[in-house]
Amino acid sequence: MTAVVPKQVVALRFESGTLHALDQTLLPFREHWLELRSAEEVADAIRRLAIRGAPLIGVAAAYGVALEQARDPDRLEAACKLLRDARPTAVNLFWALRRVQDAALASSPGDRAIAALAEASAIEREEEAASAAIADHGAELLAGSRRVLTHCNTGSLAAPGRGTALGVIAELAQRAGVETVLVTESRPLLQGARLTTYELSQLDIPHQLVVDGAAAGLIARGAAEAVIVGCDRVAANGDVANKVGTYPIALAASASAIPFVVAAPISTIDPACPDGEAIELEERDPDEVRCALEQPLTLPNVACRNLAFDITPARLVTALVTERGVARPVGPDSIRTLLET
Amino acid sequence: MTAVVPKQVVALRFESGTLHALDQTLLPFREHWLELRSAEEVADAIRRLAIRGAPLIGVAAAYGVALEQARDPDRLEAACKLLRDARPTAVNLFWALRRVQDAALASSPGDRAIAALAEASAIEREEEAASAAIADHGAELLAGSRRVLTHCNTGSLAAPGRGTALGVIAELAQRAGVETVLVTESRPLLQGARLTTYELSQLDIPHQLVVDGAAAGLIARGAAEAVIVGCDRVAANGDVANKVGTYPIALAASASAIPFVVAAPISTIDPACPDGEAIELEERDPDEVRCALEQPLTLPNVACRNLAFDITPARLVTALVTERGVARPVGPDSIRTLLET
Repeated sequence: MTAVVPKQVVALRFESGTLHALDQTLLPFREHWLELRSAEEVADAIRRLAIRGAPLIGVAAAYGVALEQARDPDRLEAACKLLRDARPTAVNLFWALRRVQDAALASSPGDRAIAALAEASAIEREEEAASAAIADHGAELLAGSRRVLTHCNTGSLAAPGRGTALGVIAELAQRAGVETVLVTESRPLLQGARLTTYELSQLDIPHQLVVDGAAAGLIARGAAEAVIVGCDRVAANGDVANKVGTYPIALAASASAIPFVVAAPISTIDPACPDGEAIELEERDPDEVRCALEQPLTLPNVACRNLAFDITPARLVTALVTERGVARPVGPDSIRTLLET
Repeated sequence: MTAVVPKQVVALRFESGTLHALDQTLLPFREHWLELRSAEEVADAIRRLAIRGAPLIGVAAAYGVALEQARDPDRLEAACKLLRDARPTAVNLFWALRRVQDAALASSPGDRAIAALAEASAIEREEEAASAAIADHGAELLAGSRRVLTHCNTGSLAAPGRGTALGVIAELAQRAGVETVLVTESRPLLQGARLTTYELSQLDIPHQLVVDGAAAGLIARGAAEAVIVGCDRVAANGDVANKVGTYPIALAASASAIPFVVAAPISTIDPACPDGEAIELEERDPDEVRCALEQPLTLPNVACRNLAFDITPARLVTALVTERGVARPVGPDSIRTLLET
């Protein structure tokens, strides 16, 4: 008998001048690798969510700039703009782009492609290290929790390395085992149903899929001892923008007095953004609501609203776990302290 | 130019010894009428949600007993048991079955089929009148609300006549117009996406479909001035069992201080049930979670939880609208007063 070794999923690989990306729109049904060779191709993959997850988007975009620099050194500004516009909510994207842009501008025109590539690679390695540190801090914070609920996908498909919230769950499982991970399907794009179940089964961690509307009632019945999610942006006051459907789960956790924990790298904090109201929330294509994957759920002329994110106010966040440590309670002071660490 | 007259949908029709039921699993894509001639056929239609909505289930089951009595007068008890077991959460079902059973037993064996049919028809007419009264009381309570959010389907497809919550919305629209009705898709079976959008478009009422997870964030942004839903059972203390995903919407309404109103006929109140914890919540087939209509959303071996309902505690319910009037605040005293009216 051969032991089954749980495998951590890898979502991005830069090799011989090409960014290879696992097409996340096809998972879990098919493992297909995209080969991306320009900023436009990377931006397109980000726009259509073939590459997704705030930290992973930042790294992919950084490689996108490097790829474009190799093709045409004059298109630095244009490449950055193209990639910045691909997802308006993710602050890591802006942060990563600024870093590669600065690195490129600090070099002579002939060296810019190399400089951008080195910076992209440095960002990736830093995010991997951040993931590992987040997993450690989070597992310490949630030690003893055996039934955990998570929303959307925040593992190795969302961030270089182990991911954010799912990295914490993997570390919890490794340290003491977990009884079950409740996974919300995360409509409209079903990152929970498709990606989180895929990663948890690769990691050999027991889990149960639920519809988004079921999370609150299950929390009220004691089916989860803690909630842990990732996020797309943290405002200076601790308000959090994350996948649509996060806020009602935070309300339910608060009503049942269980911890609601957000895990994210420091690069997700946007000190220039005072609070949740100042965060622009992306409104996406109504067809995402009208359909599930390829299946029409209603008639094609039905009007929809499709905000991709919602805001969870800081008062509902029990703790913010970053690679530099934990902010708890979450508010302007603890956020500032983290940033100054 | 011909004026478009908004049409109210009809879901059930008893004619020449047959119960005709619009197959709700096929809407909005196809309007197909089932022809049901036995208790087993009616029970099957209820089990697979071709007939659904707590008040409509009660009426259909009552006709199911009458159909079975016409086939075999000895199968009264068996028919009632079969139909009672079709959906464990809906209390109207038990109540309607008790009424036809009592009516049949009060007659001589040869007259039982006629007596059961007369009682089923009486229940249907009473529920239609109740619908109309609920619509009036509810529209008065919510007068002035122009942006309303509702969950699941509670119109003419869910109850004889105008329905419950959707009947209130239709009356609001008729009296003063509404700007928009936010309709949650209501996973896993998508009664909002499929049925509520279908009814609202027949009624010519403007509406927008959203995923279930989006409701709370939209409420927080002021996109709805009130929430109105139906329900499957009201406990003696005012706790409410309704479609999974109702409780997080109630939490969001409470957090944003907008009214969260439940509309239901008196027959939905179960005075024998002390509180929400005592309500048995149906756990349905995991394939409902793994798929959306016919589309697989994840791999077939993924474990799921699929509670069809959740409990909204009475403290989150601003008002309970019934055909006898409005309970507000909602609690043991106001519920008892309604029952004794």
